[in-house]
Amino acid sequence: MIKNYKLIIQYDGTKYNGWQKQKNTKNTIQEKFENILYKLLDKKIDVYASGRTDRGVHAKGQCINFKCEVDMENEELMKYINDYLPEDIRVLSLVEEEERFHSRLLAKSKTYEYVICAGVKADVFKRRYVYNIYDVPNISDMKKASELLVGTHDFLGFSSLGKTKKSTVRTINWIDIKKEDELIRIRINANGFLYNMVRIICGTLLEIGLGRLDSSVIDEVINTKDRQKAGCTLSPNGLTLLEVIY
Amino acid sequence: MIKNYKLIIQYDGTKYNGWQKQKNTKNTIQEKFENILYKLLDKKIDVYASGRTDRGVHAKGQCINFKCEVDMENEELMKYINDYLPEDIRVLSLVEEEERFHSRLLAKSKTYEYVICAGVKADVFKRRYVYNIYDVPNISDMKKASELLVGTHDFLGFSSLGKTKKSTVRTINWIDIKKEDELIRIRINANGFLYNMVRIICGTLLEIGLGRLDSSVIDEVINTKDRQKAGCTLSPNGLTLLEVIY
Repeated sequence: MIKNYKLIIQYDGTKYNGWQKQKNTKNTIQEKFENILYKLLDKKIDVYASGRTDRGVHAKGQCINFKCEVDMENEELMKYINDYLPEDIRVLSLVEEEERFHSRLLAKSKTYEYVICAGVKADVFKRRYVYNIYDVPNISDMKKASELLVGTHDFLGFSSLGKTKKSTVRTINWIDIKKEDELIRIRINANGFLYNMVRIICGTLLEIGLGRLDSSVIDEVINTKDRQKAGCTLSPNGLTLLEVIY
Repeated sequence: MIKNYKLIIQYDGTKYNGWQKQKNTKNTIQEKFENILYKLLDKKIDVYASGRTDRGVHAKGQCINFKCEVDMENEELMKYINDYLPEDIRVLSLVEEEERFHSRLLAKSKTYEYVICAGVKADVFKRRYVYNIYDVPNISDMKKASELLVGTHDFLGFSSLGKTKKSTVRTINWIDIKKEDELIRIRINANGFLYNMVRIICGTLLEIGLGRLDSSVIDEVINTKDRQKAGCTLSPNGLTLLEVIY
């Protein structure tokens, strides 16, 4: 009987070209799963994720699903996949879902975290997962500016997309900014994200915190949809997909 | 005026050939410091550590010292060194010490931690710092066996040393074994450690916990000094030098 498997996975994205396989790009996380299922079932199985994560971006709670018929208990299948995955990708859980479940189409919202280490050199054991700067931004200014982003807006100006016919309206449900010693954690929950949206939003908030941009740019970018007015795209290594909510 | 600088440093040892520079081995942590001081002062400065850590072993609180004359405030010197160090080595603190201070000769004891991830695939974000096994050892058996190691003994049998004229008697002050979910943390404090001693002790305790060795081997190895009777040498990536006490 064909079953629909839902998996929560984590990965260190440092050396991968993101989740999604592409024509001219090798070494994606999706391929790793599809290759293991091909080896197991001698058959091409499509593996879907809640969304693509870009090159170098990490995940602690990415959700993926695939449909196949396999003569194994869930626990056994999870162990089989983990054994064949490289050590920087891991399945945290594997359960059967109803047939209509789809990790991308049914995702209600996703939470990303961007971590900045400010003012000192980053802990060597965390260095791959934080963006390190020597200046220290004003957190209160960042928080105030972040409130202007919450809500339903056209976020085209906060993306690296060119012209597109698809809707670029998304709803940011909340943004939480916390400082723990030298680490600044920016968590953003939205019903969907455009290409590079989190990294550009965090770059803009950071530049506001550093006094290089005024918080008025937020409304300006939303209204003009002009990417050039927003802050820089922060490097992918500070970004982690935390959770997908259904 | 020549000053004696004491530094606490951390490093991810994954890609280094240990702390100490050697004739035929490049890429040691010691070299990184000596090269920076050479660049700064145009002069060879010897940098001493509390002890060598082996290839692939990490440190969260290694202590080093060096003497030199430099026209910089402590904070400025620390920042200078951190800026030139690679991102997997970091100075946590830098202070002036009295002239007679020597990081190795005056060390009273050192604490190492060995981390084993048992029963499940390791967290991808910790994978470089734990030793991953699929069996789960009996912690209570490991704890009982560890008590037999505490005290002053000749630990030659728990080392990779060949014959030596130097004393191989050391005092283990305490061993603490804790299980936190899938992680087993073995902390050992001693007045000194022989070559590979922590890794062989942890290998022996692990094999006792897995029922492959009887705890009677501990006394046997101490008495016979026979390395062959002890457990395996666990891989370096699970080992971290935590603290040096003066």
